[in-house]
Amino acid sequence: MFLIDCGEGTQVSLRRMHIHFQRIKHIFISHLHGDHFYGLIGLISSMHLLGRTKPLHVYGPPELIQIIDLQLQASLTNLLYTLDFHPTQAERAEILFEDETMIISSFPMLHRIPTTGFIFMEKPYERRIRKEMIGQLQIPVHLLPQIKSGADFVADDGTVYPNHMLTSESPSPRSYAFCSDTAYFEDIIPIIKGADLLYHETTFMNNRGVNASEKFHSTTGQAATIAVKAEVKKLIIGHYSARYDDLQPLLDEAKAVFADTELGIDGATFEI
Amino acid sequence: MFLIDCGEGTQVSLRRMHIHFQRIKHIFISHLHGDHFYGLIGLISSMHLLGRTKPLHVYGPPELIQIIDLQLQASLTNLLYTLDFHPTQAERAEILFEDETMIISSFPMLHRIPTTGFIFMEKPYERRIRKEMIGQLQIPVHLLPQIKSGADFVADDGTVYPNHMLTSESPSPRSYAFCSDTAYFEDIIPIIKGADLLYHETTFMNNRGVNASEKFHSTTGQAATIAVKAEVKKLIIGHYSARYDDLQPLLDEAKAVFADTELGIDGATFEI
Repeated sequence: MFLIDCGEGTQVSLRRMHIHFQRIKHIFISHLHGDHFYGLIGLISSMHLLGRTKPLHVYGPPELIQIIDLQLQASLTNLLYTLDFHPTQAERAEILFEDETMIISSFPMLHRIPTTGFIFMEKPYERRIRKEMIGQLQIPVHLLPQIKSGADFVADDGTVYPNHMLTSESPSPRSYAFCSDTAYFEDIIPIIKGADLLYHETTFMNNRGVNASEKFHSTTGQAATIAVKAEVKKLIIGHYSARYDDLQPLLDEAKAVFADTELGIDGATFEI
Repeated sequence: MFLIDCGEGTQVSLRRMHIHFQRIKHIFISHLHGDHFYGLIGLISSMHLLGRTKPLHVYGPPELIQIIDLQLQASLTNLLYTLDFHPTQAERAEILFEDETMIISSFPMLHRIPTTGFIFMEKPYERRIRKEMIGQLQIPVHLLPQIKSGADFVADDGTVYPNHMLTSESPSPRSYAFCSDTAYFEDIIPIIKGADLLYHETTFMNNRGVNASEKFHSTTGQAATIAVKAEVKKLIIGHYSARYDDLQPLLDEAKAVFADTELGIDGATFEI
């Protein structure tokens, strides 16, 4: 389970949504503006107070570990678990995490302070075995890993059964890109290309493009343009300025450019 | 307006209670356990983002200003207002604040890390002028300050009107003492003696006295005993262990020792 950014009160929100936060193993912090990390120290402390022993991995700007350590020291807290900190940089894209099933990378955003986006990419699935063929051809079990990886099967009588007869297409690997906070920044397009789901901040509506540029934030139109140019499948917008009580106009503006857009709101869940 | 301690989410609670937090001028932090200060940086930041220009005074352990500064630096934030930090110490009682009407002091508590309580004391009121006597005796206005302070009035014919004829008793000065977190600690009794209102932590019920001692917290009975020995007028208990869903038994235990006890719960207000 992964958590991206951790504003003040995140642990309260997690409880309210009945998400057991000890299951979170990796936390990614995009940048050190308070609305993105002021809840981290509280979550780290609560994990400790509730008896966590499993390691926690935190990824974020280098100063973050100083901020955490200073607060743990001030309270004379020795965490019961290992907090494994992985400093990020906002100069170039890099892989932060990799296991058998997925790769998570960071990449630079265009903001007032060093900020990274994150992209979660599944690795390609192995092809699916057609079970009925295995039985029919009496293929030995020890050959199955090779066949899943694309090998043909040669029967005892020398007959070659090509792989496409033995296996079927597996689902496409899925990907999720998180882009907050950032001004309009086309450099991210090749990195997030074709993502199944893109979260992109939309702090302002289109008529506040100057505000957006000055504050290194994006408008609805800019976020949707990134979605179009990166050919993503779906866009979630969010990080709205407090000036907007009604979010429908922001959604309308984004949809005018990229139809498959949804509002990111507290507690919303999106299946990929 | 004064704020004592500032756990995570305090700014959200203040908004929910319709308390305009820019009116807070002084914040007192008892100690550096997270539940007492993790919301401070968020409140400080929000005050800035919402355009505060009035100074803010923060009183707390010396490391607190490092923690604040490090986070402001990481976000490249230059506060629009002056943050005036006053380091506290937990070795002896000291005056933190004084103006014409009140004195606020800190005093040591007995906890695992340096911790202070706070006592808010009104200064004695001047005596109240009896308006009907002013008119009847035609006392010149410029003499009123002296008379309020206790002077007699000598009329032109030499008659001396003693002060008690010219003035009446003013109300007693009020006081509020805040004691969290602490083990049972009789050293505080002379400091909080006769307080109109005492907040004293009660993390545990009486049957967990060993837990309380080990963790430098208090039981309901201990808090109530402090209230009795200090001859305070009213006791508020709080800082309950998460193990207690029902708080009534804690209240019952405290009341068995000190009758005028009330539960401190979210959003409660107490008039002094």
